[in-house]
Amino acid sequence: MDQIDLTGPFEVLSRIPNSTFALLWKTLDPVRDIKGLTLTPNATLAKSGPLDVLVVPGGFGQEDLMQDTEVLAFLREQAATAKYVFSICTGALLCGAAGLLRNVRTTTHWRSMHLLEYFGAMAEPARVVVDGKHVSAAGVTAGIDGALRLAAILRGDRTAQAIQLALEYAPEPPFQSGTPAKASTEVREMVEEQFRAIAQRRLVTAKRFRDVAAANSHPASPEVRA
Amino acid sequence: MDQIDLTGPFEVLSRIPNSTFALLWKTLDPVRDIKGLTLTPNATLAKSGPLDVLVVPGGFGQEDLMQDTEVLAFLREQAATAKYVFSICTGALLCGAAGLLRNVRTTTHWRSMHLLEYFGAMAEPARVVVDGKHVSAAGVTAGIDGALRLAAILRGDRTAQAIQLALEYAPEPPFQSGTPAKASTEVREMVEEQFRAIAQRRLVTAKRFRDVAAANSHPASPEVRA
Repeated sequence: MDQIDLTGPFEVLSRIPNSTFALLWKTLDPVRDIKGLTLTPNATLAKSGPLDVLVVPGGFGQEDLMQDTEVLAFLREQAATAKYVFSICTGALLCGAAGLLRNVRTTTHWRSMHLLEYFGAMAEPARVVVDGKHVSAAGVTAGIDGALRLAAILRGDRTAQAIQLALEYAPEPPFQSGTPAKASTEVREMVEEQFRAIAQRRLVTAKRFRDVAAANSHPASPEVRA
Repeated sequence: MDQIDLTGPFEVLSRIPNSTFALLWKTLDPVRDIKGLTLTPNATLAKSGPLDVLVVPGGFGQEDLMQDTEVLAFLREQAATAKYVFSICTGALLCGAAGLLRNVRTTTHWRSMHLLEYFGAMAEPARVVVDGKHVSAAGVTAGIDGALRLAAILRGDRTAQAIQLALEYAPEPPFQSGTPAKASTEVREMVEEQFRAIAQRRLVTAKRFRDVAAANSHPASPEVRA
């Protein structure tokens, strides 16, 4: 997990009036994020009741869950009854692996945008995409923008605006370097290099997912090959 | 603690090359943030060596530390040798209570901006303020902007820009409601109401700090009365 995929939306969504939440995992043991921040779940997947909003964060660790049958079954089961499924960053790939994104307009981290089609999703490279019950945010920090959108959908614009003001969310990035189109070539190459190994693993996984999906479906079924 | 005061800067600063960090508290017991997120320290104040960068998050819980001699002594001791002291949101009030901000240009959460003068600081209502070794960020989410500024100071613009791109930090708030000047009157009044009790407590504390500082100093000393 990349912690701000979770803590960004948590900051917003935990302030929605008259709501409760749970941080869910297989066990209640503390979980270490990719950089060493320790977060502690407060409920288990197995004991979770149905959720109105299912939030799915990402990070490099998403890749290790792409064939985790317990996690994927949990996502499928919850998504069937949830009012909203909200993915952040590469959490979208997990939703894709759970089969939730076929023909769903979806965004994800810029470095994984090309992978969405392998899961049958329609890639839409926006900061936040809302398609029916599916809300997706782009990379990492986009979870804050997505959560404010979701707060507005759930409780109205004024509630979301009050949360924004309480959090003084009037961002002023000191550089224009937040997307590959804006960043310099040199900076983009630095980041591409950091992502090279995980990007290769993710591509192999995505192709395997597509091949398995195609083999399991009727050969004439067009949407699986889309 | 308001968790994103810590997790926002953590997301940026933990990606600074060739650096180490610690999450410090009195004990290693898990700490619950104001909305229930559980974070776990990995070192104690008592056993911390000198820090190059001292990061001081805020939140409603800051008020309970304003007379905590162990915490204030730790801040004073570390600040004496740190290259940078970085406060987020009402972490600035803690730095003020530790006596670190006399004649220092400083920002904080908009609802506490008027309190800075009681600690001898010069309030500067900007998103991020850098004054010598002191870096301060405005409310809550401003910690991300402040951390990127600090990353650039410590390791150069390109390193900070690469972190920004990796985190896809190209924010698109869905509303223009992140500052009291931009928010509607109705939204501002909603948030003022949420902050009323803590704001009153903070004002009493700030006035007491000023009075004690004045009583402890020579009557003719002008800067304490500033």
